[in-house]
This record gives sequence, C-alpha cells and structure tokens, in this order.
Amino acid sequence: MFAPIGHIRSPFREKFGVPRQAGLASGIESTVVFDPDIIDAEALRGLDAASHVWLIFGFHLVPTGAARSTVRPPRLGGDRRVGVLASRSPFRPNPIGLSAVRLLEVGRLELRVCGADLVDETPIFDVKPYVPYADAIPDAHCEWAEAAPVPVGVVVSAQVRQRLADDPDVRPVVAEAMACLAHDPRPAYVDAPPQAPARPHWLRLREYELEFHMAPEGHIVIDSIRSDSN
Amino acid sequence: MFAPIGHIRSPFREKFGVPRQAGLASGIESTVVFDPDIIDAEALRGLDAASHVWLIFGFHLVPTGAARSTVRPPRLGGDRRVGVLASRSPFRPNPIGLSAVRLLEVGRLELRVCGADLVDETPIFDVKPYVPYADAIPDAHCEWAEAAPVPVGVVVSAQVRQRLADDPDVRPVVAEAMACLAHDPRPAYVDAPPQAPARPHWLRLREYELEFHMAPEGHIVIDSIRSDSN
Repeated sequence: MFAPIGHIRSPFREKFGVPRQAGLASGIESTVVFDPDIIDAEALRGLDAASHVWLIFGFHLVPTGAARSTVRPPRLGGDRRVGVLASRSPFRPNPIGLSAVRLLEVGRLELRVCGADLVDETPIFDVKPYVPYADAIPDAHCEWAEAAPVPVGVVVSAQVRQRLADDPDVRPVVAEAMACLAHDPRPAYVDAPPQAPARPHWLRLREYELEFHMAPEGHIVIDSIRSDSN
Repeated sequence: MFAPIGHIRSPFREKFGVPRQAGLASGIESTVVFDPDIIDAEALRGLDAASHVWLIFGFHLVPTGAARSTVRPPRLGGDRRVGVLASRSPFRPNPIGLSAVRLLEVGRLELRVCGADLVDETPIFDVKPYVPYADAIPDAHCEWAEAAPVPVGVVVSAQVRQRLADDPDVRPVVAEAMACLAHDPRPAYVDAPPQAPARPHWLRLREYELEFHMAPEGHIVIDSIRSDSN
C-alpha cells in the first residue's frame, strides 16, 4: 500500500549507536534522498519555511514477524515491560518510525537534516513540516520520558588523541562518535556489575570502527579508531 | 506492507468540518478501537503514563492516484501553491496522516482521546506515546503556521435556540458543532465577495445535519439542526 519515497543517508551503519530518539545527537547530519521516479522537485517547494520536519520511516532492519506485544525500553532500565504501543520500540505491529529533525537545507531532491536517529538506508515514507501550534505540546508529559536522558561524559584514549593529531580526516568522525556515545548506546540489560572488568564495545560510524568501554568512574572512553580498509 | 491495527470512531461523518489540525477542536472526543485480531490488550500496558499520543493513520477518503506535487493549503488562503511535502495536505505520495491527541482513557482495546482531526472510520496504523523531550520542539517555527488560526465567533439562530431549550439531546452536538465551526471549515477558494448573499453550508456531525452561514459581520450563524431521521 505504501512505497518508500526515498531513503536516508546517515553515518549509522547499524542499529547499535543510533540515538534512541531524534534530536539527542543533534550535531549529526543526515540527508534524505528522494526517489526521482516518485518525487518531483516541486513537491518540496516552500518546505524551507519550516525549521523542522517529521520523517515517517520504516524500521527496515526489524525482521518480518518480529513484532512484540510488550517490550523492555532502555529508558526503563531494560527490565520493566510495557506495551509496545506505550513505547517507541521498533518491534511494533506496523514497523513505522516517527522522528522530528531540524531542517538545514532543501536541495533539489534532497533534504539535509540534523538530529535524525535513523540507520543509513532507512526507507522514508513521508516528510511533513513540523507545525508548532499542533505538534509542540508544551504541557505534554510522559511518566518515563519527562526529560532527555542525562548524557555521560566521553573521553578519548592517548592512542586516539595521537591519531587525531596525526590524521585530521578522523576528526569529524570522532566528534560524531562522541555525540553518539554521550547517550550510552550499550543495551541496558547487559550492564555488567561495577566490579566486573569493562567490556569492550564497537561503534561503527561511516567507514570507521571505534572501540570503547565504560570506565568505572562512569564515563565512556574511546580506546581506538580504525578505518575498514586498515 | 502495513495493515490497519484499528480505526477511529469520531463524530465526523465526512471530511467537511474536520478541524484542519489536531488539537484545534480540543473538546471533541473520539475513540481508537483496536482490531482484536491484531492487537493484544497487553500492547497498551503502561500507555496511561503518557498525556498525549501520536496517531499515524491513513487518509482513506483520498482516492488512489489523487496525490499531487503541489497543493493550495487553506492556511495560505487557498490561492498559493506549495509542495505537498511542505504541507500537511492529504494528497501526499503516501496518504499517511499524523496527529497528536490528548489521551483521556486507556480501555481494554480502546483509547478515548480528544482533539483528533480524523473522519469516522479512519484506519489507524500506529499509536505512539508523545515523548516531550523529543517531540515538543519549543523553538520550532513554520512561516505559514506560527500560531493556531484565530477562531471565528459562532452563534445560533433563534430557531436553534428554541430547539436547544426543547430538546436537551441536541445540546452536545450543537456544542461540538460550535467548536468545529470556530475554525471555519469553508474552503478558502469559494469565499464569496463580501457583498454576495451568504451561501448556506451544511455540517454533518454524528446523526445530525447543521445548516450554517457566514454573517456579513464575520461570524458564523448556525441556522438549523435536524437529525437524519427527521
């Protein structure tokens, strides 16, 4: 019934590391690329009047049949179950996602946006202007999501610091990684007890892979960065 | 690919008179009725933690093939064309609608909501909690929709006043009609010149039909109300 009108190009090569809501990693840019067989450039005329747009997209990495009645959202510590329709989980009856992003630039058949929480190549079904008087509800509340999660500190190891000095090309991707890791992408339910040795994790971003761990002091350390071609 | 998970029951029997954005007629109640073959009551567990929900729905009254590249939104006076993706028009490449509504009550397989701008029997594809920190963007702006449209005054004729006195049953529907008409549902492009005689219009709401006209003074007069069975 619905066909994608385009897809997103984002630095996120896999689900791990994608911010858990739009706007959390507001410095990260993505591009909505429209399918010229479906969208005429005229369809975007005047969209630059809006500061933000809604992206309605498909959770394309969720396998068919993976919908659940209840889920354990990371915001609830990963151990409390709520109904899937009471969450923003991708494991929904219809795997439709909704994200408000800041609109940076309207191109001919492209939109440059920031703050998207979408994996690269996510299919886009609709783009709508954010209409403040209808969409921004100042008195809305949601018990388990009143405020954005508190970011954690992110530092780089001596090795990464050296790499940044030697290779200016990696600076943007390290900056993006720091923005993503500040929202602690580790699954809540694998949280090791504080006395356990820190488990390494890998964040894949653009053509790089970054290894990081949670330090006992409660901040994240980026241990190394390597490009796929290394 | 996507199948409705339920549908809405609302007082709006046709597109004419439906508020042009969610929240405009905030006193009007509707009910989301889930399909028990698709949705398990567990899927709603904990949804009462949210004050508002998103409805992602299908514009089911838009005929197939009716998508346009550009539209003339009523907010722009009906004579300025913008790209369909720069508008909230139903004539979109994928006829998907998005509305934030206040959640009044979570039933077993029902949600009582208010402020919906959906025609009765609209198919619902997804319900999501409104997450204030991600969805309410206080600094968002949209050139042509900074503020809600200014409501127009609505009064009732002597005949309707008499009917209200005689028949308490019509009071709720007249109250609903006044809430809808305050947002002037008349298509902008048929606006008659001020010197023309006022054209009658009909608003169908629940099992009633209300005749109204725009008075030269700029307010709406409800001239009569009759039930379908009369």
